Amino acid sequence: MTDNARPPVTVIGLGDMGRALAGALLDAGHPTTVWNRTASRADALAARGAAVAATPAEAVAASPLVIVCLLDDGTVRKVLEPAAGALDGRTLVNLTNGTPRQARETAAWAAGQGAQYVDGGIMAVPPMIGRPEALVLYSGSPAAFAAHEATLGALGAARHLGADPGLAALYDVALLSAMYGMFGGFLHAVALTRSEKVPAAEFTPLVVAWLGAMMESLPAMAEAVDSGDHPATGSNLRMQATAYVNLLEAARDQGVGTELMEPMRALLDRAVAAGHGDDGLSSLVDLLRTAPADGPAPQR
Amino acid sequence: MTDNARPPVTVIGLGDMGRALAGALLDAGHPTTVWNRTASRADALAARGAAVAATPAEAVAASPLVIVCLLDDGTVRKVLEPAAGALDGRTLVNLTNGTPRQARETAAWAAGQGAQYVDGGIMAVPPMIGRPEALVLYSGSPAAFAAHEATLGALGAARHLGADPGLAALYDVALLSAMYGMFGGFLHAVALTRSEKVPAAEFTPLVVAWLGAMMESLPAMAEAVDSGDHPATGSNLRMQATAYVNLLEAARDQGVGTELMEPMRALLDRAVAAGHGDDGLSSLVDLLRTAPADGPAPQR
Repeated sequence: MTDNARPPVTVIGLGDMGRALAGALLDAGHPTTVWNRTASRADALAARGAAVAATPAEAVAASPLVIVCLLDDGTVRKVLEPAAGALDGRTLVNLTNGTPRQARETAAWAAGQGAQYVDGGIMAVPPMIGRPEALVLYSGSPAAFAAHEATLGALGAARHLGADPGLAALYDVALLSAMYGMFGGFLHAVALTRSEKVPAAEFTPLVVAWLGAMMESLPAMAEAVDSGDHPATGSNLRMQATAYVNLLEAARDQGVGTELMEPMRALLDRAVAAGHGDDGLSSLVDLLRTAPADGPAPQR
Repeated sequence: MTDNARPPVTVIGLGDMGRALAGALLDAGHPTTVWNRTASRADALAARGAAVAATPAEAVAASPLVIVCLLDDGTVRKVLEPAAGALDGRTLVNLTNGTPRQARETAAWAAGQGAQYVDGGIMAVPPMIGRPEALVLYSGSPAAFAAHEATLGALGAARHLGADPGLAALYDVALLSAMYGMFGGFLHAVALTRSEKVPAAEFTPLVVAWLGAMMESLPAMAEAVDSGDHPATGSNLRMQATAYVNLLEAARDQGVGTELMEPMRALLDRAVAAGHGDDGLSSLVDLLRTAPADGPAPQR
């Protein structure tokens, strides 16, 4: 091993994403050990120089940094529990999709095995892995992240969000939720225009331009959420609740299902009924909680 | 009147938007006549040179081009019906918010009075009016639009969508629906991150970057909708339906209401149950209709 040698890394789980992760590590020159339940998934990586471990325990033992990317949280435990004895002193980076609670539970379990724990959320599709435009969010042990930041940088742009291991999953889930909102709105819009035989390809450039323009108001909405003061710019919630009825009526007239649009109507109506008719749209965020309010201006 | 003189225009309805419209016409040098139920709304425009009509009929009689921008469709009829005798031979441009059906009904009514009819949807807020970034969508009589296109250009970028007077309202409603989808997704995402005291201002730049990246997939989704062939890029609907459960569970764990997220879950589940588990997300558009299917590839 020379001074320039890259530290060894283990990748457990070789789905599309796991294979992309291991491939990026190999490309960056890391000695890479892999394991997958279906061993044949490792063949192409082995041909590129990866060592194929026979068991998860062997895979964990091979490297100080162990990256897991499995189907779900239950699979993580099932795969790692037989390998728990090998985790002591290592860093476990869990890139499996999951919830903040699952991340925190796995972090506690890993600590019990003597491992440092970093959770991660990959905001990219497999073909992007290894390129700087692949954003990977991390949270958990700051020391472990710092120690392995250069290695993790081989996967994409690495950003550490804080010591709470649940933060990466929280951001991941929040970003995916925002994405589904946008995609749902888009699909409803396309269902409307195609009801008059407008090709989606003709309508979509307008949507892209329009949503791009509307995105410019998100920072002001964020500021309103943080301050707890929700000024109406343009039309207030009372006006929006009234105008929203047109959106539903137009959909019904055109034979388009309104299911994606109904919850916003209900929120607007609830906000107006609660006395927020003069507020701007950002004020709806206060209705989106089932737990007791913790004040309008959260600060860390 | 010289050769350079601008043609006269009437603006009926002086809410925030109507005043902006009349102001832009005055700025562009058009002799402008205005009417509003509450006459004092015209004071500032009168000081800038607008003629203030005493009745809607007088306002209609003042110009060959009559722009109305009122509260809603019911108000349009209530205001214009007493002025109907003056409409013969004029062009009525209706910029009032409404549905495609309302636009078509008003077009038929206007035709009965001998007027040409153009409907419009303003994709801008009042401060943008008069600038090229204010997009105004029009539909209805192509001849009337062509005759007044230069004048309408004083309000913003004018785009004619077709002879069906309902098209502008259809696009307007569709774009607003897409916007509410994006805003709803954003508010849910912010509700999630603030549940851990992450300031919205800290999270929002990530959302903006992420949504911007995700918007790049809309043209491919549009192509899939038009072709009726919905290839899964990345994860298919079966995988997405499974992963979506995490989004709901995370929200519940964090005390965040799931109401904005539930309809998409139901759609994903319905699509998988209907045998579309291998499709991509765009295939959901086929579930968003209450009218009988009219084939996968609408063409005009």
